[in-house]
Amino acid sequence: MALTSYHLPLQAVQFGWSNAREPVLVVPSGAEIHVEVGECSNGQIVPGSTAEAIRTIDFARVDPITGPVFVEGAHAGDVLQVDLLDMKLGPYGWSANYPGEGLLPEDFAEAWLYVWDLTGSRAPFVGGASVPIEPMLGIVGCTPSEPGVHGSIPPRRTGGNMDVKHVGPGSTVYLPVEVEGALLGIGDPHAAQGDGEVGGSGIEASMDVVARLTVRHDMTLTFPEYEVRRPLERASSAAAGYYVTTGIGPDLVENSKAAVRAMIARLVRTRGLEPVEAYELCSVALDLKISEIVDHPNFVVSAFLPNDLFGD
Amino acid sequence: MALTSYHLPLQAVQFGWSNAREPVLVVPSGAEIHVEVGECSNGQIVPGSTAEAIRTIDFARVDPITGPVFVEGAHAGDVLQVDLLDMKLGPYGWSANYPGEGLLPEDFAEAWLYVWDLTGSRAPFVGGASVPIEPMLGIVGCTPSEPGVHGSIPPRRTGGNMDVKHVGPGSTVYLPVEVEGALLGIGDPHAAQGDGEVGGSGIEASMDVVARLTVRHDMTLTFPEYEVRRPLERASSAAAGYYVTTGIGPDLVENSKAAVRAMIARLVRTRGLEPVEAYELCSVALDLKISEIVDHPNFVVSAFLPNDLFGD
Repeated sequence: MALTSYHLPLQAVQFGWSNAREPVLVVPSGAEIHVEVGECSNGQIVPGSTAEAIRTIDFARVDPITGPVFVEGAHAGDVLQVDLLDMKLGPYGWSANYPGEGLLPEDFAEAWLYVWDLTGSRAPFVGGASVPIEPMLGIVGCTPSEPGVHGSIPPRRTGGNMDVKHVGPGSTVYLPVEVEGALLGIGDPHAAQGDGEVGGSGIEASMDVVARLTVRHDMTLTFPEYEVRRPLERASSAAAGYYVTTGIGPDLVENSKAAVRAMIARLVRTRGLEPVEAYELCSVALDLKISEIVDHPNFVVSAFLPNDLFGD
Repeated sequence: MALTSYHLPLQAVQFGWSNAREPVLVVPSGAEIHVEVGECSNGQIVPGSTAEAIRTIDFARVDPITGPVFVEGAHAGDVLQVDLLDMKLGPYGWSANYPGEGLLPEDFAEAWLYVWDLTGSRAPFVGGASVPIEPMLGIVGCTPSEPGVHGSIPPRRTGGNMDVKHVGPGSTVYLPVEVEGALLGIGDPHAAQGDGEVGGSGIEASMDVVARLTVRHDMTLTFPEYEVRRPLERASSAAAGYYVTTGIGPDLVENSKAAVRAMIARLVRTRGLEPVEAYELCSVALDLKISEIVDHPNFVVSAFLPNDLFGD
């Protein structure tokens, strides 16, 4: 039961993390907050946009963070428990290739944009593919104790842009608190994303989020932890199975690149996708798993693509 | 339909991969092979063994490979398709901490051994935990083209000790062929293993394997690929949910270490396990996922432990 309920509008955003900022909201522990979270371009990309919008995007205004929210009673060394109670997506989303970003910038130098229709339970893509809608929140974090402004793209000890596909409705995130009041921020909603987010974007969308914030004096953490209370796997994926590529060698990033390149090659060959389409489909729907990390000197990364994307 | 059926006994093993070895079996493409695969200590660990058996283990006789099997018509550049039709486990298994091995050798210097009872659908552990039996094959590979003898522990381009938990009954593995006849070897059966195999062993067991071998002239691969045709997730895990730790930073191995250390600390604190017991439970039941690999300079590894291990 929430003690009371609070509302944060779309405009209550900051760029980067700074513990010198004034809170946009002060709430007691146990409060439920209702937040309108904008998509990560902060309005620079809209349904009629083309790849030109990616070429000219202002990165200083990407990944806005709604907040900071000051939670009373939270002190450095505590943990902030964030129960994600509800997530409602806006009607459209987008995915992009930004030159220089993503896991394979050397392979994909051109700006590319796709706008998704999110009004059904699956979002149609090209080549007969469609992606089931599975909302999640890319940014959930507390403000770091270091002075200055810290960019919102890299995640840190206190969380932030963790881009964990399993941080969805019903999940609980536990965040290390480093400053008085925790100074929570949230942002970067996705309608779907694969483990890895290999192309650099999920299905970027706006979202209304309901979350309950609770200060935990009885926990201490080095990095964020979370709980997932819904199945990890869709029934349709379990039924249709997976095609899996691998990368094998001493470096997990290189292994991930090899596995994703192999999957792109397969999608181009078997489904007729353009390479960049295949790459960005992997970004929203392919999962990277570390199969083994102990058989020195070579480790295995597996890249899982569910067959149900193509209605198989 | 198999053209015919072939049998390989427990004794038909080699240590390491070498393309100079005589095949133990020659089969046509399409053949079904029935293989008795020993556990990876090659009989050095038995139900009455103690940690002393780990301290004195002869590593030169660990991870024997059943084979090589010469598949007629397989030439360098082809792909060998291995359909894993059936896996029947022996009645016991074991897990060990070998000093100097695993993801956290600096934390776990002492030899440790646990012998599992595999006669039920779940294998009982300590602290009220039990691990559902989910058989898989750690080693499936073709012989590399390089001359000499190559150790069986690291996996390579041609596969080998990939330790992929999803290579189970109903899965199909596609392996690059580098030498005439492919020279297939299999080994290292597990009754269960987590993605990562973080403690260095799964539930090591013996297994009767039935596989069909098919030469594919119409494929070419850089690394192995595979297909999974069973659910990735148990119904009981989906219902009970997961507790997840993370590691965040620029190095995926360090992130994995941080996430596993956090899970061990939690298991010690909340379940009363000894640290080494928690570590080895993670080895057989915790899954490492790469949550994001694009938010430079910091990537996120998530370590998932299913609550159903404790009957929650």
